[in-house]
Amino acid sequence: MSKKIAVILSGCGVYDGAEIHESVITLLRLDQRGAEVQCFAPNIAQMHVINHLTGDEMPESRNVLVESARIARGNIKDLREASVEDFDALIVPGGFGAAKNLSNFAVEGAGCSVQPDVLALTEAFAEAGKPVGLICISPALAAKIYGPGVTCTIGNDTDTAAAMNKMGATHTNCAVGDIVEDKARKLVSTPAYMLAQSISEAASGINKLVDRVLELTHENDA
Amino acid sequence: MSKKIAVILSGCGVYDGAEIHESVITLLRLDQRGAEVQCFAPNIAQMHVINHLTGDEMPESRNVLVESARIARGNIKDLREASVEDFDALIVPGGFGAAKNLSNFAVEGAGCSVQPDVLALTEAFAEAGKPVGLICISPALAAKIYGPGVTCTIGNDTDTAAAMNKMGATHTNCAVGDIVEDKARKLVSTPAYMLAQSISEAASGINKLVDRVLELTHENDA
Repeated sequence: MSKKIAVILSGCGVYDGAEIHESVITLLRLDQRGAEVQCFAPNIAQMHVINHLTGDEMPESRNVLVESARIARGNIKDLREASVEDFDALIVPGGFGAAKNLSNFAVEGAGCSVQPDVLALTEAFAEAGKPVGLICISPALAAKIYGPGVTCTIGNDTDTAAAMNKMGATHTNCAVGDIVEDKARKLVSTPAYMLAQSISEAASGINKLVDRVLELTHENDA
Repeated sequence: MSKKIAVILSGCGVYDGAEIHESVITLLRLDQRGAEVQCFAPNIAQMHVINHLTGDEMPESRNVLVESARIARGNIKDLREASVEDFDALIVPGGFGAAKNLSNFAVEGAGCSVQPDVLALTEAFAEAGKPVGLICISPALAAKIYGPGVTCTIGNDTDTAAAMNKMGATHTNCAVGDIVEDKARKLVSTPAYMLAQSISEAASGINKLVDRVLELTHENDA
């Protein structure tokens, strides 16, 4: 039986959505390992639209689900349709979309809140004891999902780590090619482009995260 | 000495731009093989914008270079700045952007023309005898770049192959995990999502294409 994995995207582009390399590497590794994948995204407006050539904000509006559909080649559903019972695990790639659309961490820091549909689904995976993989900046949401004491990593950025610790997480420094695992909570995290200087560096940690998340789903078989 | 490879993107999304998976897999394999990559895209308006969730056209305008910058994480240049002397090889991922923005093949078929900046650069690589890799639908441009008799593949779609043959190409059927090489012209092509049923199928042919293009650059060392 192939494992069923839900992937939450947050737009399409590192500065205002899901980081594209991280998302594609996640989808590729899951497929290469024989997992069955369904992408989801919240059906909400992006916080803003960034011109990725100049870094400037653009005077227009885009929808997170519609733009995420670009990464998923149209094969994506509204996050509200996701049910924890249908999946063995969940993975959330990074990109500023995780901190701007899935939550408002980019603006509010330790005082952030998680988008309600995202919070409901991620909490359901946590409560069901199903493995979750958080990539890049998305571990910033871990304390909101799991509550105080959750262990995770965004690499070694001291400001971000301090904000996460203030929210109740226990941040652990981690190299780009490695993962941090909270064994009790079955939560795996990796820094990816929080540290990666190249796409293959990002892939090294993401591949390890995907492999570990899939291993953890087999533990739940027992 | 690491090889320098130019990659031409055509937007960001399979239905109106560069196919995202193909583009990222190309960038990943090139980086894993130690190549130095520079992305380029034409600084022109997209033919149109497609909602990738519904397949409908959206009433807005987007720029090919600006949207391509999402895939390149901002590290991209106007195609007009590209000079063949600076590179050892060129790769063009697919997606409808190749047939809508880099050319008008999607509308005009065998009567198509290639966007002038794209044609100038690709012809320069052909004339210099430097290897070129064309992925998915982008081999539809081969006859315009190389002239009659060029051998290439888009998989096995008979209508597309017939249009290419009418333009002067010699289309060869090819499986998704394989490549077709025109040895005299140092042109390598692979079907990718013209045939792929999954991202790992697409990766199998693209990885082979990238490896062969890099091998061919070493032949030019001799």
